[in-house]
Amino acid sequence: MKKLLLIGIGTGNPEHVTLQAVRALNAADVVFLIDKGDAKAELVRVRRDICERTITGAQPRFVEAVDPERDRMPADYGVAVDDWHAARAELYEGLIAEHLGEDGCGAFLVWGDPSLYDSTIRIIDRIRARGRIAFDVEVIPGITSVQALAAGHRIALNGIGEPVTITTGRRLAEDLSGEGATVVMLDGRVDFAGLDPDLIIHWGAYLGTADELLVTGRLGDVAEVIRETRRAARLRHGWIMDIYRLSRPAT
Amino acid sequence: MKKLLLIGIGTGNPEHVTLQAVRALNAADVVFLIDKGDAKAELVRVRRDICERTITGAQPRFVEAVDPERDRMPADYGVAVDDWHAARAELYEGLIAEHLGEDGCGAFLVWGDPSLYDSTIRIIDRIRARGRIAFDVEVIPGITSVQALAAGHRIALNGIGEPVTITTGRRLAEDLSGEGATVVMLDGRVDFAGLDPDLIIHWGAYLGTADELLVTGRLGDVAEVIRETRRAARLRHGWIMDIYRLSRPAT
Ligand SMILES: C[S@@+](CC[C@H](N)C(=O)[O-])C[C@H]1O[C@@H](n2cnc3c(N)ncnc32)[C@H](O)[C@@H]1O
Ligand SMILES: C[S@@+](CC[C@H](N)C(=O)[O-])C[C@H]1O[C@@H](n2cnc3c(N)ncnc32)[C@H](O)[C@@H]1O
Repeated sequence: MKKLLLIGIGTGNPEHVTLQAVRALNAADVVFLIDKGDAKAELVRVRRDICERTITGAQPRFVEAVDPERDRMPADYGVAVDDWHAARAELYEGLIAEHLGEDGCGAFLVWGDPSLYDSTIRIIDRIRARGRIAFDVEVIPGITSVQALAAGHRIALNGIGEPVTITTGRRLAEDLSGEGATVVMLDGRVDFAGLDPDLIIHWGAYLGTADELLVTGRLGDVAEVIRETRRAARLRHGWIMDIYRLSRPAT
Repeated sequence: MKKLLLIGIGTGNPEHVTLQAVRALNAADVVFLIDKGDAKAELVRVRRDICERTITGAQPRFVEAVDPERDRMPADYGVAVDDWHAARAELYEGLIAEHLGEDGCGAFLVWGDPSLYDSTIRIIDRIRARGRIAFDVEVIPGITSVQALAAGHRIALNGIGEPVTITTGRRLAEDLSGEGATVVMLDGRVDFAGLDPDLIIHWGAYLGTADELLVTGRLGDVAEVIRETRRAARLRHGWIMDIYRLSRPAT
């Protein structure tokens, strides 16, 4: 039986990988490196770096592929995502069929943890549902950007006994109304429009990397600093990955 | 300057530790092992096992201590937690003062990730605020039980574009009403009383260990199986750690 390993590799620091991930990488005959287009020469570099540091025996075969384009301004968000996942399932299925022998072991290296705002698990489920190739799947957890944010600021995510909600920039307005703290990922704008200036923010970019940026304070006081830091960093790097936590001030 | 490392060690699988954690462990002169009482010979054993596997040079000094008792049936939850944190700050401050030299490096090994329902960061902040001893702090992220749950079931935590809320058994009723999926930790009862039987549950216990248990299905169909599995496992082990995700069925 073919085997697929979906390996979480952490979020920028090559030392985020776990010993379990190292063992899994060493078991893979083939490592699939999917270029997501956005900016991510850097991200492919981190993946290669991790393989070079941690694979001790024969290097696996590296198979590079470019993810299908995604419609970034779709009329219907749900349909666009579905089309995109279908195209990726087609691509990944082809890669597996072409490069993995009957008892071959292939690894997909997933940024952060495969369980959080990443579609690799869903794509693999789709391929399995199509039923054209059979394989086993194992998921190896990795450090998420949420944890990298908390570690960078040396904070707990939750208030004592309180919940924490992880959401996206797109849904921020709705999801901020609940109890507890809110962590926001995938926010392309980061303009904080309409938010209560008394919220406390912990913001981080390029977490885990040598370029890590951290800003914290009362939102009203630091919003402009963050927007400006973000603008300048994005210009310098050509891309940015950032995340933030919003919480109500202690009473 | 003294240095404290708060190291996330993952949730039961000694191979959950990251290379960053391994490096940090190797830098520590002293490792503080805090016995939390509950059940946790097992949990101290995992910590020792991690140290033995990963520390390559001279072993650090191990300092064991027992956490102060916590009032489990307090009249006022907030006050009880505050008292308990104060007692622990006192204890940890004493340990640091007694066992860590002027440029010493001490490590606290935190179950899972220090950012999630763990008070070590808050205790250390308290000691710093008291101002009697000065030290630097570094937090090293670890795999949480939330990720171990998702990896065990090979699922994403969030629906596509949807939020995920992490909460406690105590707050489940309130927090389940929001959008997206809900992950429940620290639920001492796990009785599912009053919950919609059409919810989908992914339940896991002893995640990451050889005793890992996983059950999934429609809540109405599997609630009894989970309660029974949990009861039997708890009897066998003398303790249990479990966590679950609730989501609405796909429409
Ligand atoms: C498609 S999601 C993938 C999340 C990933 N699976 C994880 O576990 O963190 C990408 C988002 O994660 C966040 N992110 C990922 N890596 C980051 C980093 N190194 N620094 C800051 N944010 C990061 C950003 O919010 C970004 O928009
Ligand atoms: C005090 S919290 C600590 C959480 C930890 N800091 C983390 O990152 O997962 C303890 C709760 O975590 C969950 N938990 C921790 N380890 C677990 C495991 N191996 N299997 C299942 N649940 C676990 C349970 O819900 C338990 O009640």
